[in-house]
Amino acid sequence: METFLRVNVTRKTTTRESVPEKYRKVGGRSLIAKLLLDEVNPACEPLGKHNKLIIATGLLAGTGLSSSGRISIGGKSPLTGTIKESNAGGISANRIARLGIKAIIIEGFPEDDRWHMLRITPEGCQFLPAEPYLGMGTYAFCEKILAQHPGAAVTCIGPAGEKLYAAAGIATIDADGKPGRYSGRGGLGALMGSKRIRAVIIEGKGTVPLADSEKFKTARKAYTQLLHDAPSSKAYRDYGTAAMVATVNALGGFPVNNFSRGRFEGADQINADSLNARIRQRGGEGRTTHACMPGCVIGCSNIYADRNGRAIVSPIEYENIGLLGSNLGISDFDVIARLNYLCNDIGLDTIETGAALGVAMEAGVLSFGDGDGAARILEETRQGGVLGRVIANGAVVTGRVFAITNVPVVKGQAMAAYDPRAIKGMGVTYATSAMGADHTAGPTARSPVDHRDPRGQAGVSLKMQKLLPILDCTGLCLFTIGALGPRLDLLLDLLNARFGWNLDSGWFEQMSVETLKDEQRFNELAGFTRVHHRLPECFTERPLPELDSVFDVPAEDLDNLMTYE
Amino acid sequence: METFLRVNVTRKTTTRESVPEKYRKVGGRSLIAKLLLDEVNPACEPLGKHNKLIIATGLLAGTGLSSSGRISIGGKSPLTGTIKESNAGGISANRIARLGIKAIIIEGFPEDDRWHMLRITPEGCQFLPAEPYLGMGTYAFCEKILAQHPGAAVTCIGPAGEKLYAAAGIATIDADGKPGRYSGRGGLGALMGSKRIRAVIIEGKGTVPLADSEKFKTARKAYTQLLHDAPSSKAYRDYGTAAMVATVNALGGFPVNNFSRGRFEGADQINADSLNARIRQRGGEGRTTHACMPGCVIGCSNIYADRNGRAIVSPIEYENIGLLGSNLGISDFDVIARLNYLCNDIGLDTIETGAALGVAMEAGVLSFGDGDGAARILEETRQGGVLGRVIANGAVVTGRVFAITNVPVVKGQAMAAYDPRAIKGMGVTYATSAMGADHTAGPTARSPVDHRDPRGQAGVSLKMQKLLPILDCTGLCLFTIGALGPRLDLLLDLLNARFGWNLDSGWFEQMSVETLKDEQRFNELAGFTRVHHRLPECFTERPLPELDSVFDVPAEDLDNLMTYE
Repeated sequence: METFLRVNVTRKTTTRESVPEKYRKVGGRSLIAKLLLDEVNPACEPLGKHNKLIIATGLLAGTGLSSSGRISIGGKSPLTGTIKESNAGGISANRIARLGIKAIIIEGFPEDDRWHMLRITPEGCQFLPAEPYLGMGTYAFCEKILAQHPGAAVTCIGPAGEKLYAAAGIATIDADGKPGRYSGRGGLGALMGSKRIRAVIIEGKGTVPLADSEKFKTARKAYTQLLHDAPSSKAYRDYGTAAMVATVNALGGFPVNNFSRGRFEGADQINADSLNARIRQRGGEGRTTHACMPGCVIGCSNIYADRNGRAIVSPIEYENIGLLGSNLGISDFDVIARLNYLCNDIGLDTIETGAALGVAMEAGVLSFGDGDGAARILEETRQGGVLGRVIANGAVVTGRVFAITNVPVVKGQAMAAYDPRAIKGMGVTYATSAMGADHTAGPTARSPVDHRDPRGQAGVSLKMQKLLPILDCTGLCLFTIGALGPRLDLLLDLLNARFGWNLDSGWFEQMSVETLKDEQRFNELAGFTRVHHRLPECFTERPLPELDSVFDVPAEDLDNLMTYE
Repeated sequence: METFLRVNVTRKTTTRESVPEKYRKVGGRSLIAKLLLDEVNPACEPLGKHNKLIIATGLLAGTGLSSSGRISIGGKSPLTGTIKESNAGGISANRIARLGIKAIIIEGFPEDDRWHMLRITPEGCQFLPAEPYLGMGTYAFCEKILAQHPGAAVTCIGPAGEKLYAAAGIATIDADGKPGRYSGRGGLGALMGSKRIRAVIIEGKGTVPLADSEKFKTARKAYTQLLHDAPSSKAYRDYGTAAMVATVNALGGFPVNNFSRGRFEGADQINADSLNARIRQRGGEGRTTHACMPGCVIGCSNIYADRNGRAIVSPIEYENIGLLGSNLGISDFDVIARLNYLCNDIGLDTIETGAALGVAMEAGVLSFGDGDGAARILEETRQGGVLGRVIANGAVVTGRVFAITNVPVVKGQAMAAYDPRAIKGMGVTYATSAMGADHTAGPTARSPVDHRDPRGQAGVSLKMQKLLPILDCTGLCLFTIGALGPRLDLLLDLLNARFGWNLDSGWFEQMSVETLKDEQRFNELAGFTRVHHRLPECFTERPLPELDSVFDVPAEDLDNLMTYE
């Protein structure tokens, strides 16, 4: 029987509840949207007692299917005030699902200052004292926890979450035990910190039941083959997400120096070829391909090693190359890897932090290209220094404090590494997503369209926005879409075999639109209107110099999109 | 002929335009609301090129009538994103009106880094270079300007406005040439700074025409007598606004230590009697009564002198005693006067700054009661240090940076010195005013009601909210209301005699409701909804300890109020 694990941090109690019927056919992001709408007042203070942190598994979690064990974490965002779901790879979701838990709902508000970790085993759930670990970076923390709880899965916050920074994320370990898989966005780490939960530790290994194991096996085989053979998978395996550097730079949408330009003079030094060459040349612990979830046949991840072959960070991803690299005028992978590591260790969203640093650089707090200065500021966030606190509260707060109006955000959340003046479909996604400027809500950079033509971009974005909940509900990785897009029937077979359902192909569209509408409904009740579904003036009126282009998708198109028809 | 003076800071041009018919019967706050709705996109970036700063005179400005020369300054607020009007006394509005100018509209966006002052004379309007004065405190600045332009009126920003701080206000000099009269709220100083206008200097003395001077003279005589004789005027003259300390403390609504309590153990040391005794005892330049506008028969202001009889600041007002005193755990007038002076000199809103300092004290950045620490932080705002920048961007940013959720704001603006859990009508005003938590939008503390009974408070607030535009449109001081409230016919006579109109008594209600609706319309178009017309959880759920009271006026009452029926 699938259950919710409800954790009350006021009373320090945990209860297992049978999953009510209405939640059975949704998982991950879609489940989070429904639970938040039902249980959380959208107008509540995000760091107050009425908000809840929900850790949800996807529908296919625990089955061992390749790329299907993403962990969805959600709540009302301390960064944006909107609904928020942020998913990541790593090993926790499969483990949670295999203990018969569909979602963990952390609610209430601690009445004292004590910190805890949740330890979840087949026998139950305990609150363990977390005081000895406070202030510890996530890498050292996970090492300690794994020494005490060998083989456990860990999802945790770092010092940033403890300090309730609005750019704090939540890390999940990969199969190597490294906390590099981030539910980074929207300040969910601060929400977890507000509940004074430092980590969730999952021990014990069960299995999930399959209603029709033969059918599942057949579908699984076809799925794995499809995924393995797809050109998109091979590209991810060979180049990782870093392949986007060349693509987006060529499109003129690679953020440079706080989104003031769209083509980076140092792009060649930080593209996928350079990354692979560097990793190979250094050898040692470095890997050009790596799986964040065991059994993933894509393996888009990598391990970046230093001159001595010692791993610095895993993975270096496109968004971080953009936000911690070009956007800061930095073209050196060693510097990017160091900043990326620091963000992961402190528990900060790399995108929000990179955007905030870019704003601070424009303000002259430090110079573009000053990687040492950026690292010093990150260390200051760890210590709680004032400048560190400003940056760690994100791009909007940084802009306010330093009187910069060129702030690349929507609904208070920083854009990913796609300039919406060059890739206008992405601008539509940024503007209309319920999550703020979230590239994963509807990525259009690979869509075969003229990205600078404002016409039709709403349709391009909408198509992707409707596709994503299918993945985010089932726990699948976005990078399966290249293979799976034309074969959603396989996904249907897997779901029907797993649960004994009889879903037909119309279900995807229905569930997806319902999720999108649930999320927007939450935001409406939280006080968001169409005025918030717009890009800031610095993108609609300040042209990107290389292209002489502004974001000019008509407001009407943005509003029409949100009917999801 | 009445004109608008339109100042374009892009092209550095100024033009005089005849006032269009639709704007003739409104002044001050009401005129600002109409102009902003007509000329400014409510969704614009407040510090960007589409916002406008409007300096408007009231309908009776320039007539020399007691207490009628308040200056209204407005625009889209850089602090709140709402519409904003903030009025103050001082000598500028009468001078502007006497040059035939109804309002100054500052628009456009500077294309270079140069700063200017606007010099307005009967002959025209010039841009004077302001670079020599950058960084200068408002007191030294005004002294310099008055030495060069003897007898001029000056309205200016300080270093805070130059640095675009969201808590920056705009100062207007009194008859002594001191910049102590503040359009403090909503960050209008930052808006003025974004236009790179350091000051408006008004020279030359004209007169305003009176359509029926005999009738005006008669009405004026009755008005002046009424105002002079009113018990409320005598109370203001004798005690100033500091009389509210004892009243509000007795009601349990005097903010203490970041609004965590409502009665201050040091209240007796900072009440009106102590203030008067201190001023009298020290003699010298101190004054227990003082007029901020020449000819004011109320004279609520004061001059606070140091041990040597040298003036420190004028005036010490109730709000500053509350926000820079009890709210910071400070019970020493010398410390309050110093902080008040620093705010005035740097160009900061005392209310927002006091609230931000209170939040920082709760966070442990400095201790409650630490006046020296507060002064040091204010000096840091002047210099642009990071902590200073945080505080000078107001209570919300300070709360974000230091992870404090007890932040006394509505729509991003700090509350004045009335705790809404004790004086619930004020809470209704805070919640529903278009300006954010603005006590002057509908002050209820003197209303003869049980302030803790949630029932009926919406009506109490609405009555005051409808009264205020009458004053804010005509340029009258709020403190005339005790005398004038029952005799609005006199005000009607004055207006009709001034302009040759035939307004009847229904006009007040009609104009007032129109102003309130204009303002709310602007906010709606800026993205505000009923969710924003609420108090934060720390007031609806955290009881004020002395009274065990929360703000519990039903949301329905708040929503109903906003029909203004």
